[in-house]
Amino acid sequence: MKFPARIAPSILACNLARLSDECSAALTSGGDLIHFDVMDSIFVPNLTFGAPLLSSLRKDGFAGFVDVHIMANNVDLLVEDCAAAGANSITIHFEATSHVHRALSRIRTLGCEVGLAINISTPLDAIEYVLDEIDMLLVMTINPGFGGQSLIPAALPKIEKARQILDRGGHATRIQVDGGVKVANIRTIADAGADTFVVGSDFFSAPDYAVRCAEFRAQLA
Amino acid sequence: MKFPARIAPSILACNLARLSDECSAALTSGGDLIHFDVMDSIFVPNLTFGAPLLSSLRKDGFAGFVDVHIMANNVDLLVEDCAAAGANSITIHFEATSHVHRALSRIRTLGCEVGLAINISTPLDAIEYVLDEIDMLLVMTINPGFGGQSLIPAALPKIEKARQILDRGGHATRIQVDGGVKVANIRTIADAGADTFVVGSDFFSAPDYAVRCAEFRAQLA
Repeated sequence: MKFPARIAPSILACNLARLSDECSAALTSGGDLIHFDVMDSIFVPNLTFGAPLLSSLRKDGFAGFVDVHIMANNVDLLVEDCAAAGANSITIHFEATSHVHRALSRIRTLGCEVGLAINISTPLDAIEYVLDEIDMLLVMTINPGFGGQSLIPAALPKIEKARQILDRGGHATRIQVDGGVKVANIRTIADAGADTFVVGSDFFSAPDYAVRCAEFRAQLA
Repeated sequence: MKFPARIAPSILACNLARLSDECSAALTSGGDLIHFDVMDSIFVPNLTFGAPLLSSLRKDGFAGFVDVHIMANNVDLLVEDCAAAGANSITIHFEATSHVHRALSRIRTLGCEVGLAINISTPLDAIEYVLDEIDMLLVMTINPGFGGQSLIPAALPKIEKARQILDRGGHATRIQVDGGVKVANIRTIADAGADTFVVGSDFFSAPDYAVRCAEFRAQLA
């Protein structure tokens, strides 16, 4: 199954001191959704931001699609908090909880789109029994924690295999990639089967976000 | 020992989508320093923000005093990250690490002022062997996790006793309070012996921050 490509600027790489302006600029420049990286300093070695930031963003009037990626161990609490704060989709990590199915079901009940993320070292077997629960599979292409890292090539055949598994089962499930996505490699990643591209430093370090976004689109055309 | 009173607006209660503007307004309105509440969703039931937000704030040009309060378990990592991001003072919790003395010493080495926080239920004995290491004792007046809570009265005699212990030992150590500080009770808290007042919802919910700050000062006069 082939989905239209989506560009998801990750605010981990933006000027967080002016978040509202940055999010608006990211979407008016051609981004499709905002990727919101929640890290707790336990599951990953960084503490970024959580529901209070999203809540402020919504109260400030931002109405765009916010895709929350929870890289944290207190999954059950954060799913509730992020949904209440205004998330449109919520992705949790397979490795972060013993009760993956319950958390995925809860995200659905809360009215959000449902995502499941798997780290580089996690085999695709992990998704076997939850394929019917998810709208999106996030195949990590770095070890999460920081922006500015390079894509780990081992992830590319994993994306291909994931696409085959999903198509074989007839699942209308998107594949997102997060980590090291750049103008120089986005086409290769798309050809492997991904359709939703988290872009961080390569997007927000550009002098003109709209120009950079057009460069991504040109690669994907 | 009597220190001049300081008002410390806590950005947990501000519009985080416009952090740079809010921090500038808080200090030009009469606040003395910015209180920066780092929570990890493990040590406390909320995940707020960490070093990346502070780093963006500094890059955006904010030069005011930032007082980081770490309510998180990965103390050693966060002390490093917050110092590198531009903290002026860092406070850790006695309850969050088995190696309180090491963490306090490290904060000093990193060039920041050193704070130690104790929860409501933690006895003052906790500070006995680290009194020479700290510039500030933070006596929690709520169970940390959220803004908008009411001060727990049991904390008031604890502040008095802490001031006596510090004065008896000749320690030039400030006492900070965090939680439920309002115009209506700030004088009582000051009379108990506190000098640095974290103010959250009562500050940022005011229609005019400068007017509210003047109300705090009038109570303290």
